[in-house]
Amino acid sequence: MAQVTQGTQLQRAIQGEITPQMQRVAERDGIDAELVRSEVAAGRMVIPANVNHTALDPIGIGKAASIKINANIGNSAVESDIDGELEKLHLAIDHGADTCMDLSTGGDIDGIRQAIIDDSTAPIGTVPIYQVITSMEEDQDWTAEDLINMIEHQAEQGVDYMTVHAGILVEHLPLVNSRITGIVSRGGALMAQWQLEHHRQNPLYEMFDAVCDIAVKYDVTLSLGDGLRPGCLADASDEAQFAELETLGELTKRARERGVQVMVEGPGHIPMDQIEMNVEKQQELCDEAPFYVLGPLVTDIAPGYDHITSAIGATMAGIAGASYLCYVTPREHLGLPNAADVKQGVIAYKIAAHAADIARGFPGARDRDDALSRARFNFDWNEQFALSLDPETAKQMHDETLPDDYFKTAEFCSMCGPKFCSMHVTREIQRTTGLGEIPLELKQ
Amino acid sequence: MAQVTQGTQLQRAIQGEITPQMQRVAERDGIDAELVRSEVAAGRMVIPANVNHTALDPIGIGKAASIKINANIGNSAVESDIDGELEKLHLAIDHGADTCMDLSTGGDIDGIRQAIIDDSTAPIGTVPIYQVITSMEEDQDWTAEDLINMIEHQAEQGVDYMTVHAGILVEHLPLVNSRITGIVSRGGALMAQWQLEHHRQNPLYEMFDAVCDIAVKYDVTLSLGDGLRPGCLADASDEAQFAELETLGELTKRARERGVQVMVEGPGHIPMDQIEMNVEKQQELCDEAPFYVLGPLVTDIAPGYDHITSAIGATMAGIAGASYLCYVTPREHLGLPNAADVKQGVIAYKIAAHAADIARGFPGARDRDDALSRARFNFDWNEQFALSLDPETAKQMHDETLPDDYFKTAEFCSMCGPKFCSMHVTREIQRTTGLGEIPLELKQ
Repeated sequence: MAQVTQGTQLQRAIQGEITPQMQRVAERDGIDAELVRSEVAAGRMVIPANVNHTALDPIGIGKAASIKINANIGNSAVESDIDGELEKLHLAIDHGADTCMDLSTGGDIDGIRQAIIDDSTAPIGTVPIYQVITSMEEDQDWTAEDLINMIEHQAEQGVDYMTVHAGILVEHLPLVNSRITGIVSRGGALMAQWQLEHHRQNPLYEMFDAVCDIAVKYDVTLSLGDGLRPGCLADASDEAQFAELETLGELTKRARERGVQVMVEGPGHIPMDQIEMNVEKQQELCDEAPFYVLGPLVTDIAPGYDHITSAIGATMAGIAGASYLCYVTPREHLGLPNAADVKQGVIAYKIAAHAADIARGFPGARDRDDALSRARFNFDWNEQFALSLDPETAKQMHDETLPDDYFKTAEFCSMCGPKFCSMHVTREIQRTTGLGEIPLELKQ
Repeated sequence: MAQVTQGTQLQRAIQGEITPQMQRVAERDGIDAELVRSEVAAGRMVIPANVNHTALDPIGIGKAASIKINANIGNSAVESDIDGELEKLHLAIDHGADTCMDLSTGGDIDGIRQAIIDDSTAPIGTVPIYQVITSMEEDQDWTAEDLINMIEHQAEQGVDYMTVHAGILVEHLPLVNSRITGIVSRGGALMAQWQLEHHRQNPLYEMFDAVCDIAVKYDVTLSLGDGLRPGCLADASDEAQFAELETLGELTKRARERGVQVMVEGPGHIPMDQIEMNVEKQQELCDEAPFYVLGPLVTDIAPGYDHITSAIGATMAGIAGASYLCYVTPREHLGLPNAADVKQGVIAYKIAAHAADIARGFPGARDRDDALSRARFNFDWNEQFALSLDPETAKQMHDETLPDDYFKTAEFCSMCGPKFCSMHVTREIQRTTGLGEIPLELKQ
């Protein structure tokens, strides 16, 4: 089944080739194919496209493209099965997720992953160490070879991008001691535990060239995990975080030199005023590799609403130059997201990505807003719903008080009623006196 | 019943008096009472505190105070009654709203308002023109005197602050012609219609001194309404909006000269990259009068989720210098918010205000975040819930998968399960090898 490519998208871009994947990325984002090629060649854009993921409709991740969002799905040992995960996959994609990560850590992991890849037109990402751990009796029994073999196994299955926690080094670990929440990346914590248990350096760091060779073979995009990302506002922007980021910068260069597409992961939890600085630092240290951020959450006091606390930070990150936003659901910190949580997370992140695209002036980003606003002013309710991120919810909220068809063209809703609708009044003025018809001499 | 004060908070602050209200504001925000006095004297802070609102526990609104949030309640002609509105009032205050505006436009408006004022420890605001309109057979039959009389009537009832659309002038109206959504302020649209119908200048502008006299008599804080606020991204920051803002700056000075506490209202819908500029412009044109913004929404494409689209903008506005955030509920643009919508709006705005307070370095703002993060790392689930903005929702989401009491101290939740909890792994490391115990010589 393994298939050898004529080179990764990066290698082919450097050679001057505009691949079918680059063509498609350009078409989907309404940008120039040659721009896509040159951005991929420069490492500022990645196109996660495993040669074995046949159902894929590729996307581009990078500053020249529209901002993309990721939905994490996957079960835990406590919950969920294959049908539940496929339901989440389709729900996420239907509501606008650009990619999905399968983070399953329990049950038939291989079966779930293959079903997801076969079913998904969106790129699929994984964190290979999770499956290594689930297959062990004792958490720390795995070897570097187990991990490399797992990466190859998942690459062969068709995984488009993989998080590798290759940047968390043994010398970074003491820097974590003063933190409130320690290590909050699952992969980072497991990697740290292994290093301390075995008195060994990070095996992914030591065997990074072997990881790159697999990535080139299947054109897997490497997503350099931030194992030391902060888990609360107090821990943000600390020495541990930035020491690892420097290593990620070094690994970015090493990967690119071997022809591997690479992006870099970022936090997590950051006060709003530090977000721009964080993005700029990553862009500088990692030679403008696409920045893939998790949120960040801008406060820690709202469990149950972390899709909102993090969408605020994600919008800011997008404006500052992050290209790829990993969603957070309302159930973050509390439990495994169910299908309803996945939907809430995706919608919140569509809002963040879109608002950031508008603010940074991405061409045509505001067109849909303007079309919806016109429909709103024209009281074309059905058109308003159709242009909404979630037509079903918008319609249902409207119809709860005014369900009749008659109200689908009515010049008011139940918020203000017929007498107090400002847009209705404006239209009345336009139909009668007109706004421009101001008498030069006013009565006293 | 009407009671004459010894002067407004502004007048007394200028005279050097620290009033009981200023003392209370200082105590609630953990700031110095003399700072409160000097900020009120400079017009940079207001304390809406009608002398007839006996149940009031006052708050301060201004840059030296913590950022405050407002919840709009009130019925429309289509929906709701007195019990429904009192339920919304208590729900809003219980979840952290600092003030409520009663925007009722139907039914027993006087009765609803009096019940709300009698019941509320939070300042209550209104928009007097609404009640004028509801009492007319024909919308445009009212006179300037009707409006002045209504302002006095509501002031006597104990309303703490009132929105007056005194800045929308007849010469501004042609500037609206090129907009997509015209005039979207209810008060602004009604005022424009009256001006065009009667060929008269804005009566609130012409009789502004009489409005100020009533405001002084009861110490009603004037909230200068932005009748020409933009109703969509395309209309943001346009000539109409800023022409009115200049007039609001002029009225701010006139009000202060007469001893009236005054704040200024702002949009609405603004792309994220224009928010800071909008706040700076208001602060400059209105001599640093507290800025009271409605959102702003940073995209128009998410009806059903406008508590999120606007909380993003509100956070940014707070960081840029807005002192007071008017919430938007999920049902904005679709219908009158019900109790559940009110709660969602309040929580989203508590998040925005708090995240902005942290980002602008308000003293002690992050303490609760740090306490919750410590509880999180200690797996003290009950303490985590207790410190949350919405303990009930946080607990319910957690308990949905792990309801037993045993799990309230378990070192994992259903998100990752026992084997993959990063914080559990960190604690395991701390209990065994320790993060600081790095061997100087690693094995190869």
